[in-house]
Amino acid sequence: MNPLEAKRHTLAHLLAQAVLESYPEAKLTLGPAIDTGFYYDIDFGDQKVSDADLVTFEKAMRKRLGEWKEFTHEEVSAEKAREVFKGNPYKLELIEEISGRGEPITLYTCGGFTDLCRGGHTAHPAEDIAPDSFALDRVAGAYWRGDETKPMLTRIYGLAFDTKEELDALTAQREEAKKRDHRLLGKELDLFTFSELVGPGLPLWTPKGALMRHLLDAFVWQLRERHGYARVTIPHLTKRALYETSGHWEKFADELFRIETREDKEYAVKPMNCPHHTQIFDRHPHSYREMPQRYAETTMVYRDEQSGELGGLTRVLSITQDDSHVFCRHIQVKEEFFKIWDIIDTFYGAFGFRLRVRLSFHDPAAPERYLGTPEIWANAENALREIASERGADHFEAPGEAAMYGPKLDFMATDSLGREHQVATIQLDMNLPERFDLTCVNEKGEKERIVMIHCAIMGSIERFSAVMLEHTGGNLPLWLSPEQVRIVPIAEAHHAYGKEVAAKLQEAGIRTEIDASNDSLGKRIREAKRQKLPYVLVLGNAEMDAKTVTAESRDHGKLEGLPLDEFSTRLTKEIVEHL
Amino acid sequence: MNPLEAKRHTLAHLLAQAVLESYPEAKLTLGPAIDTGFYYDIDFGDQKVSDADLVTFEKAMRKRLGEWKEFTHEEVSAEKAREVFKGNPYKLELIEEISGRGEPITLYTCGGFTDLCRGGHTAHPAEDIAPDSFALDRVAGAYWRGDETKPMLTRIYGLAFDTKEELDALTAQREEAKKRDHRLLGKELDLFTFSELVGPGLPLWTPKGALMRHLLDAFVWQLRERHGYARVTIPHLTKRALYETSGHWEKFADELFRIETREDKEYAVKPMNCPHHTQIFDRHPHSYREMPQRYAETTMVYRDEQSGELGGLTRVLSITQDDSHVFCRHIQVKEEFFKIWDIIDTFYGAFGFRLRVRLSFHDPAAPERYLGTPEIWANAENALREIASERGADHFEAPGEAAMYGPKLDFMATDSLGREHQVATIQLDMNLPERFDLTCVNEKGEKERIVMIHCAIMGSIERFSAVMLEHTGGNLPLWLSPEQVRIVPIAEAHHAYGKEVAAKLQEAGIRTEIDASNDSLGKRIREAKRQKLPYVLVLGNAEMDAKTVTAESRDHGKLEGLPLDEFSTRLTKEIVEHL
Repeated sequence: MNPLEAKRHTLAHLLAQAVLESYPEAKLTLGPAIDTGFYYDIDFGDQKVSDADLVTFEKAMRKRLGEWKEFTHEEVSAEKAREVFKGNPYKLELIEEISGRGEPITLYTCGGFTDLCRGGHTAHPAEDIAPDSFALDRVAGAYWRGDETKPMLTRIYGLAFDTKEELDALTAQREEAKKRDHRLLGKELDLFTFSELVGPGLPLWTPKGALMRHLLDAFVWQLRERHGYARVTIPHLTKRALYETSGHWEKFADELFRIETREDKEYAVKPMNCPHHTQIFDRHPHSYREMPQRYAETTMVYRDEQSGELGGLTRVLSITQDDSHVFCRHIQVKEEFFKIWDIIDTFYGAFGFRLRVRLSFHDPAAPERYLGTPEIWANAENALREIASERGADHFEAPGEAAMYGPKLDFMATDSLGREHQVATIQLDMNLPERFDLTCVNEKGEKERIVMIHCAIMGSIERFSAVMLEHTGGNLPLWLSPEQVRIVPIAEAHHAYGKEVAAKLQEAGIRTEIDASNDSLGKRIREAKRQKLPYVLVLGNAEMDAKTVTAESRDHGKLEGLPLDEFSTRLTKEIVEHL
Repeated sequence: MNPLEAKRHTLAHLLAQAVLESYPEAKLTLGPAIDTGFYYDIDFGDQKVSDADLVTFEKAMRKRLGEWKEFTHEEVSAEKAREVFKGNPYKLELIEEISGRGEPITLYTCGGFTDLCRGGHTAHPAEDIAPDSFALDRVAGAYWRGDETKPMLTRIYGLAFDTKEELDALTAQREEAKKRDHRLLGKELDLFTFSELVGPGLPLWTPKGALMRHLLDAFVWQLRERHGYARVTIPHLTKRALYETSGHWEKFADELFRIETREDKEYAVKPMNCPHHTQIFDRHPHSYREMPQRYAETTMVYRDEQSGELGGLTRVLSITQDDSHVFCRHIQVKEEFFKIWDIIDTFYGAFGFRLRVRLSFHDPAAPERYLGTPEIWANAENALREIASERGADHFEAPGEAAMYGPKLDFMATDSLGREHQVATIQLDMNLPERFDLTCVNEKGEKERIVMIHCAIMGSIERFSAVMLEHTGGNLPLWLSPEQVRIVPIAEAHHAYGKEVAAKLQEAGIRTEIDASNDSLGKRIREAKRQKLPYVLVLGNAEMDAKTVTAESRDHGKLEGLPLDEFSTRLTKEIVEHL
């Protein structure tokens, strides 16, 4: 256990003591260290604990901390332990488990507070822990041992770092993240909505949101088209037979939306596209000269998630994948991975994401978890290793993270708040070609088993939109803004000129709207800024007479008295720059 | 009954007599006139009648026709009729029905053959009917009275017209139609495929087919964008609640694919898009200044059709609608209809379809079938009448053809074989806005009920593709051809020049492929023609030395020794011409 983790675990004990001061009847359960601090799950019986209690608990923790000079511990018999924790069924359950495993039962004590614990604390809390380096965070519900058939407990979260500065930095990042919550931004920018009648997890995309999606997808397509991809189109349903062959009927058991037809046939709504795509590839034999075949399709897949897990765009029932499948020969794998990597780099680069790559390999100690011979795996993983080194990319290996059917490259993007998100993945699949008996005819006229490469650049448009909206804070890059320019004529006398400017810009393909409403100039400008529009043109006599524009650029400050043509050219240049 | 119908009905009698000569035990049932001739449904017991029998029957009909001088008829009692048709349960059933209704029972006789019949024959068949103006067509199965719980009968179809020339014309049209069957063309041009594992009625679109769909849809979108439409995006699922409000849960009872989730919630796969789109419109209030709102979305809908009805692209489970919904005020209806009509004219005009328009109105004698007041209907129908007259379009009124919620314009396209297909429709809907309480805030600050206009330009991409493929015989217009130019270098020495030409054309956005396979020149040219490619460039020494191309144009003959630039410009011009 590293020193910070030890501090966090120590603070969980301290929290427990503080809680018992106010609620002596509360029953403690478990209190581990976590990523940003610690928590303790506690059974408060009929009593309700709220955020207001946190102030009291936190004050008590700071007061007690000075008394927490040194931890002591003793090993006790199960009998003794049962005596100490009698009346607390949770601890008693833990004691039975520990002694059942034949492990020693230890009690740790500090500042007069004793808990059942296996250790891992800071030795001298009063010295080691700065009183301003931690804070209580929030209260939530949690089932005992995460099991929904068991009692609901109260979980109290705390934040803890080595220094106050680190704590403050996290708090600031969280404040910023709250403002950038994609659910808020989606509403503010009018990108998507949800309907009670349609249901949670099923976003409805408004004109602006649908345009944003379309532009994102067109960008990916543009990159793919350069590399020889072709679009295909499949339905969202299939007979059960397809998934019995692919193995998804079993593997996706719970998440599959199943349908019984009026003729009692079993269908499913697709949770992925690969099995359908194999059927297009397999419509006729392919010569090696036609390989690779590269199929791309942006289409929705559906997974039956539990409704408690649904929220915003990060967990949805309808997932739009910008999916692709390359059907190729073993000797073509490397080149195809390179092409896809190029696409990923260009795409994420356009948004200023930093990427690092996880080489998700098989676990050599558990060969039974994978399909295929050790030789095939060694070849495939070596190929990925080579690709990663050749590109000089920031990468690391993660044994045991491979898919059952092959190794993969997982791309992790760091956003502007320093948070890391798993985004694109490229997967090498040696399994579906076996199951569907996919081959090409090679130079010798023989059937040759092929491989498949799965890749979604955005992953899903919903998830990528969420990550990208929070990363940009809703300041969509110019090329992606549904409305690129808002024209605000100062008075009615300037409406005609406003229309003239709008027509010119629209002719150049720049998405432009006029706000000629009766609202005051100030209100109209504020409204345009609230919508985070890249350019707001305020047009009055000066501009009208000189045939110029004055622009407030969201990203580049004020541009005064620019000739219209110059402004239009400047924007066109800025728009194509991302490509 | 018109004279041709009378002839056809007469020929059904004549067929019955001919059949009884070969199969005296056969039991006659019903034999009416139909669109292109007549049929007779007959119970042959255990005996199997095949196409081979038709030759015999037809010969017998021609022989007997000379004896069919004049029809006579008599009215008989039910008792007498039962006596005549004893042993034929079908005729006995008909006799009971006729007498049950208190109608007269009549027997018609000619050439010594008597049948139960209500009349409608040509008076002197031997004189009136040309022996070469009819032919037997085919044998099919049909349930007695169309009821699948009743016995299966043998239906014999005949073709009949006034003259041999008309009969020959139909036969020729049918031969042509057979060659143009979109299912064959789809395979020949490699546009779509079906998979046993995915199931019937669920087409899978190959790279070429998906590109064709994409180009069709992009064309429609281009036309819509000019008229202020915006794309929206919805999921394919919804909770049951949406369709309870819209009325579809009940109305689409049988055709709805229903889903029960892991949490036992009821969902449906959407059979149409309007209810979802109302939820996007309704996400916030709209001022009259923002009206109309025009949403467009090309998306698949699903209907649970009986599998016996599935075939090719005309009857599918997955239907891609190029759907749109205009949310507007009553006073905006006319203008919006005009805009859509413009789009339809341009779109169908690009393929050379002739259009006529059916004004599908309500039936004033059955007001209970419709929603809304007579005044609203009168206004709406007058608006459609005015629109149709103002455009000077070929139109006709059809009372009783309106939808429950409003009148519509149905567009009928005549294809190159003279067949008429119902294609686009524009529907005025005063019902869903009521059910979902859709309003805008008008000039007085009051909520005003709005209307919806539904329209799909292609109807569905699947059905339109079928109609268009058969109409063009697979000769897709240049702009729509997945491959526009095929380059065939005469020998290996010309490959480099072929690549140069391809690169030039691709740079100009012309979809070009090279066939540099080892096949003979003749075979490669034949293959390109079999694929109905618009342009085939055969490149040899002459072209290479002079930097020209020699093109075989599918539609414009041979173009010899054209400078490459000139050829490229010519194609670019031809491509944009349809817009």
